[in-house]
Amino acid sequence: MSKHAIGVDIGGTTTKFGVVTRDGKILEQDRIPTNAHDVVEDFIDDLHAKLAPMVERNGGIDNIIGIGMGAPNGNFYSGNIEFAPNLKWKGIIPIAELIHKKFGLTTRLTNDANAAAMGEMIYGCAKNMKHFITITLGTGVGSGIVIDGKIVLGHDGFAGELGHTIIRPGGRLHKSTGSHGCLESYASATGVRETAIELLTEHPETESLLRNYAINALTSETVYECAMQGDAIANRIFEFTGQILGESLANFIMFSSPEAIVLFGGLTKAGNLLLNPTRKHMEANLLPIFQNKVKLLFSDLKEADAAILGASALVWDM
Amino acid sequence: MSKHAIGVDIGGTTTKFGVVTRDGKILEQDRIPTNAHDVVEDFIDDLHAKLAPMVERNGGIDNIIGIGMGAPNGNFYSGNIEFAPNLKWKGIIPIAELIHKKFGLTTRLTNDANAAAMGEMIYGCAKNMKHFITITLGTGVGSGIVIDGKIVLGHDGFAGELGHTIIRPGGRLHKSTGSHGCLESYASATGVRETAIELLTEHPETESLLRNYAINALTSETVYECAMQGDAIANRIFEFTGQILGESLANFIMFSSPEAIVLFGGLTKAGNLLLNPTRKHMEANLLPIFQNKVKLLFSDLKEADAAILGASALVWDM
Repeated sequence: MSKHAIGVDIGGTTTKFGVVTRDGKILEQDRIPTNAHDVVEDFIDDLHAKLAPMVERNGGIDNIIGIGMGAPNGNFYSGNIEFAPNLKWKGIIPIAELIHKKFGLTTRLTNDANAAAMGEMIYGCAKNMKHFITITLGTGVGSGIVIDGKIVLGHDGFAGELGHTIIRPGGRLHKSTGSHGCLESYASATGVRETAIELLTEHPETESLLRNYAINALTSETVYECAMQGDAIANRIFEFTGQILGESLANFIMFSSPEAIVLFGGLTKAGNLLLNPTRKHMEANLLPIFQNKVKLLFSDLKEADAAILGASALVWDM
Repeated sequence: MSKHAIGVDIGGTTTKFGVVTRDGKILEQDRIPTNAHDVVEDFIDDLHAKLAPMVERNGGIDNIIGIGMGAPNGNFYSGNIEFAPNLKWKGIIPIAELIHKKFGLTTRLTNDANAAAMGEMIYGCAKNMKHFITITLGTGVGSGIVIDGKIVLGHDGFAGELGHTIIRPGGRLHKSTGSHGCLESYASATGVRETAIELLTEHPETESLLRNYAINALTSETVYECAMQGDAIANRIFEFTGQILGESLANFIMFSSPEAIVLFGGLTKAGNLLLNPTRKHMEANLLPIFQNKVKLLFSDLKEADAAILGASALVWDM
């Protein structure tokens, strides 16, 4: 019998979960707030109350192979969420063990970016690829690295923090870590907003549609809308963002020589505005043996589904 | 019976080879010039003429499990040397196949930096490690990456070109590739020499022992000697070199989260002059979850032996 899997994506605000078939169909899904619970046990009780009837409606518990979870700072080796800055539960949370006890099902955990990479490998545009990197361009920059068909975890389970690699030494401050010039401080929604403010401030003489927005209303979406209307500064923002991203991708390619880089997340809505400068600067910074070889792709998974699919993928090889 | 292996290290100038026991003893070794032969077949004839009697003296051909080779631009997947800029043989050279035909032994090829990493894993200070990176600091900067106990080759066999990752975008010109600001243009013997010339030129008022040398006599060794005598500019050269190297290592660690970084090659003779600033800047650029975890080691293999040992290690898992 072809069993189903449960996928759980624990995000900073919302936890999404669903019952997934082996071929990647989400039979049913729901969500609960993540940070409404001061103790993790209450969160798990809530999750169980929602999931138990969902499982019953889809073939019962005997038809579930296991639970796969993605979470910020989730560690595959230990099954713990370790010191996640954006979650209420502080310190080390043995969430895989707690969920296993509550549900009686094998439970696996990894970080959310690695779960996204699993989703691409099993259900998405990296299907059948053995070597690729996913980069999530959202509020922050996440990454999942696949080598020889396996997620790279490193000796302690924390590998793949490419958003924190330094691409402009001494550059822009990354507020939550105090580092300077990391990829995330430029190639994220937050970074695009900061670039907008910088360029508008540095060029007070240049007219721009962006000046019609209050500083607080400047987002990567407003920059996109202005760029599509031909606004010069808005276009320059994406050119610069793509330059930083492309230079970083070149460095990653010279590390692991992947077949493809899969881009995912809110910033990819900018389409070619982002893709063209990214590709240009990526190719320009590669050694010739890597040039014109690496596919630069946008994920074709629906963002709402991708996290659940990716998390569920953790248990299929059991 | 415990068989021996043959290790062959094809360098730009010299090819070294030897018969190696499973526990890493080189029973006998010799060398021939690499670039004395216009066609690769003549090189192989020479190699065979030297190796055949060596094999006879050490138990005969039946006692040899295979031939492992390291070479610039050597590709493990294809067994070819592909477009190596420093060798006389141009284009694609099917060297593993040619050697196999000549010797009648299973032959494996990889690039020289990967062979060095194999040597560290089987015979050197990365023994029993599953996750580490070797960085060779010589005329250039080479690298070998090990994840889950395996050399990272990437989808095409060219992974691990960390010397060409960009750490100072728009920075120093790398003459042979035309790139700007790559690690190799700073943290190599050539890079140390360039830093010396830059600092001496930028600070004409500062006295320095280095000014006693003709520009052509300025080498990483002379910089080391002057630094040991307390010369301020010479010390600053190593501080700067260590800063660039340390920042780069931090980026590599956030990619694959290795247990150790093993440094190898001529520049490591500078000892703590290089190690201290490297460690300082490496730690300063890491996310807290990576800090004070990664060992920064100097290789303890003899440089003359390491390449032969590493190449021979390619055939032990057959």
